[in-house]
Amino acid sequence: MTETTRRARGGGGAARRAARTAVSFETAKYIERNIPNFEVLSEEALVIIETNAEIILEEVGVNFPDNPAALTRWRDAGADVQGERVRIPKGLARKLIKTAPSSYPQHARNPDRNVVVGGNNLVLAPVYGPPFVRDAAGGRRYATMADFRKFVKLGYMSKWLHHSGGTVCEPTDVPVSKRHLDMLLAHMTLSDKPFMGSVTEPSRASDSVAMADVLFGGLEDRTALVSLININSPLTFDSVMMGALEVYAAANQACIVSPFIVGGAMAPVTVAGTLTQVAAETLAGIAYSQLVRKGAPVIMGAFVTSIDMNSGAPTFGTPEAAHISYGVGQLARRLNLPYRSAGSFCGSKLPDAQAAYETANSLNMGLLAGVNFMLHACGWLEGGLVSSFEKFVMDADQLGTLHHLAKGVEIDENAQAMDAIREVGPGGHFLGCAH
Amino acid sequence: MTETTRRARGGGGAARRAARTAVSFETAKYIERNIPNFEVLSEEALVIIETNAEIILEEVGVNFPDNPAALTRWRDAGADVQGERVRIPKGLARKLIKTAPSSYPQHARNPDRNVVVGGNNLVLAPVYGPPFVRDAAGGRRYATMADFRKFVKLGYMSKWLHHSGGTVCEPTDVPVSKRHLDMLLAHMTLSDKPFMGSVTEPSRASDSVAMADVLFGGLEDRTALVSLININSPLTFDSVMMGALEVYAAANQACIVSPFIVGGAMAPVTVAGTLTQVAAETLAGIAYSQLVRKGAPVIMGAFVTSIDMNSGAPTFGTPEAAHISYGVGQLARRLNLPYRSAGSFCGSKLPDAQAAYETANSLNMGLLAGVNFMLHACGWLEGGLVSSFEKFVMDADQLGTLHHLAKGVEIDENAQAMDAIREVGPGGHFLGCAH
Repeated sequence: MTETTRRARGGGGAARRAARTAVSFETAKYIERNIPNFEVLSEEALVIIETNAEIILEEVGVNFPDNPAALTRWRDAGADVQGERVRIPKGLARKLIKTAPSSYPQHARNPDRNVVVGGNNLVLAPVYGPPFVRDAAGGRRYATMADFRKFVKLGYMSKWLHHSGGTVCEPTDVPVSKRHLDMLLAHMTLSDKPFMGSVTEPSRASDSVAMADVLFGGLEDRTALVSLININSPLTFDSVMMGALEVYAAANQACIVSPFIVGGAMAPVTVAGTLTQVAAETLAGIAYSQLVRKGAPVIMGAFVTSIDMNSGAPTFGTPEAAHISYGVGQLARRLNLPYRSAGSFCGSKLPDAQAAYETANSLNMGLLAGVNFMLHACGWLEGGLVSSFEKFVMDADQLGTLHHLAKGVEIDENAQAMDAIREVGPGGHFLGCAH
Repeated sequence: MTETTRRARGGGGAARRAARTAVSFETAKYIERNIPNFEVLSEEALVIIETNAEIILEEVGVNFPDNPAALTRWRDAGADVQGERVRIPKGLARKLIKTAPSSYPQHARNPDRNVVVGGNNLVLAPVYGPPFVRDAAGGRRYATMADFRKFVKLGYMSKWLHHSGGTVCEPTDVPVSKRHLDMLLAHMTLSDKPFMGSVTEPSRASDSVAMADVLFGGLEDRTALVSLININSPLTFDSVMMGALEVYAAANQACIVSPFIVGGAMAPVTVAGTLTQVAAETLAGIAYSQLVRKGAPVIMGAFVTSIDMNSGAPTFGTPEAAHISYGVGQLARRLNLPYRSAGSFCGSKLPDAQAAYETANSLNMGLLAGVNFMLHACGWLEGGLVSSFEKFVMDADQLGTLHHLAKGVEIDENAQAMDAIREVGPGGHFLGCAH
């Protein structure tokens, strides 16, 4: 008997000892909703917004600066290209996006942690992007690689978090040129959940794909990365972000194509106007991903905040943001695309009551809006400037609520509990009842 | 020219000085929803629950202890009465409640503060019942009449609160026998918003009606009081609460007929079982109000919390409570009755992040569940043991969010903002745009 077959049989004291001492954390399966979506827009409003979005694409167009290859792709597809401006005739973008999948698996190192993006599902991922961290002991400070690794470990240990995320904080003590390598290594070695790739340079997207290829022993077209491609709203697709998108789409890796909108600054101050711009931008961006590679996996995104019109400060957990997120959900479902929005958003500088009100507003809204991929689902503080260790843990606990809400109401005979009500009768109590 | 006509013309320096120095606080109109309700139960589930509720009423029945007059009313209406047990044949309760109004005004001292209970409306009222108060300076202590008066003043000054409430805290320094008189006097003199009557004794309900009659210079059948009648779940209607209901119904004053349910203790642990019991109890209680006086105004209530099955501690802002509240909303709308549920519920002992998460969960749920009258909308702390001054103010601010969410999305030409999007174009910003 060879050593290999003995191991495969799992025999021996060493194997038993290893199993006994192995550290393992329970992770909930991604949410599969059994409740309806909440919809605020009428059919009439949806048609107006969709029509207006295509008018904007045809009449105003979008800019693809510093990206001759993109302009060529658009021209070949039938768009009207003048300089860097791409005007997309009515119907073209909607036709192009039909090849984007409505749902697909994202593979994790541990296959038990694979997630399916789209459909009725909701995948929860942690905060993304803050240059600072804060905790009670150390206060607010620039994030380091040590902080980054701690957040990845926290995410790995969080039962209600399905995803390791990406830039859980910006490790500012590592040069930008090699930062993405260290961040990816942390996700790959300190967690077994799926994770995100780098987007700060096309070459770093290529590095991300190459590292994933090594990790999976050959990706073979499997989608192992979901990465965040922000649109430079209004209506601009810069070459850094588009360069990363081109790398990922070509490799069949997923991109969240997401307008980054501060309402009133990067989009009109009205909900309907913002929805029109979001629809135009996501149509153009997702159509472009399909020009790079038909069938490339995408997520229709909307990062929406509003500004305090007096101070200019960004605000979070507001009714306007909720309406926009409900509306984009309806638009995404009509386009048959997975949807990203919401998160543990707050403007507060501390993980206090203000932070919790705003966060709960946004988390509840995200669940009911039909979001499929929720980035920033825990740990967000101070308008996204800070990743908070304490808030990460508190928010992650609240994510459990979303799992239970999503289950809906059981109505089988046991749930009806008629025997229990009959047994207890008027004036009794149910604590000792057999039910 | 007489003094009266001069005053009526508003002339004179004294009148101008009085107008200049008058203190006036803006109060928002009650919420009129322009958004859909969120519904978790299928038609099939609703029919099962409604059918089961009537089976419980017919087979198990409800108790009306120490109340011979109630038993006579039920017997005369066709119920099967044996001892204190009232078994209500299928169809009877549903027939009786048809005379209850689906919507009605509650009059306030200041007619501008009148509210309309029912329909798509949501009326917000403050915390009710805690024997303790807490603030940062004084800590946790027994509530006094001075605290009570302070809460009434806070409610008067709160823009997003439409209602002065009732027992905003229990003033424990005033004897119970005369406490209700002082509390009513405070609501009548320190606020001009509508308020609630006493329910701790039928004679105190009579006192409440008599005082309202004085305040309004003769009520003449106008509804000026909404009062909280708790059902002693499971399935028991005690004579103190029913005595108060009888007084109010006879005087055309409104009652919230509300099972007080700690899930797993006073009702089955399942959502469907609790909904069945809530439906049975509210059907019986509201039918009884119509036996006292056809057309008496009511609100179908549900106060629902769950217990931690390990510690027995009540929990708030939970998914189970949300499902029950969504479900009771559907049942109430099918019965064409106004609906009371939700509030600033939390289990936390301090107005901290836990309190805010749980409160935001419940407030958002209440708006989407179609609640018409939300008691406890601000100030609730420590599972309802404490009225918190700080949380009252923070919660009241959050209630503004509900007003804006309820407005829905405008889609007129201005809201579409096409000119703004055209004017700004790719890469610009909207801060200086004419829109």
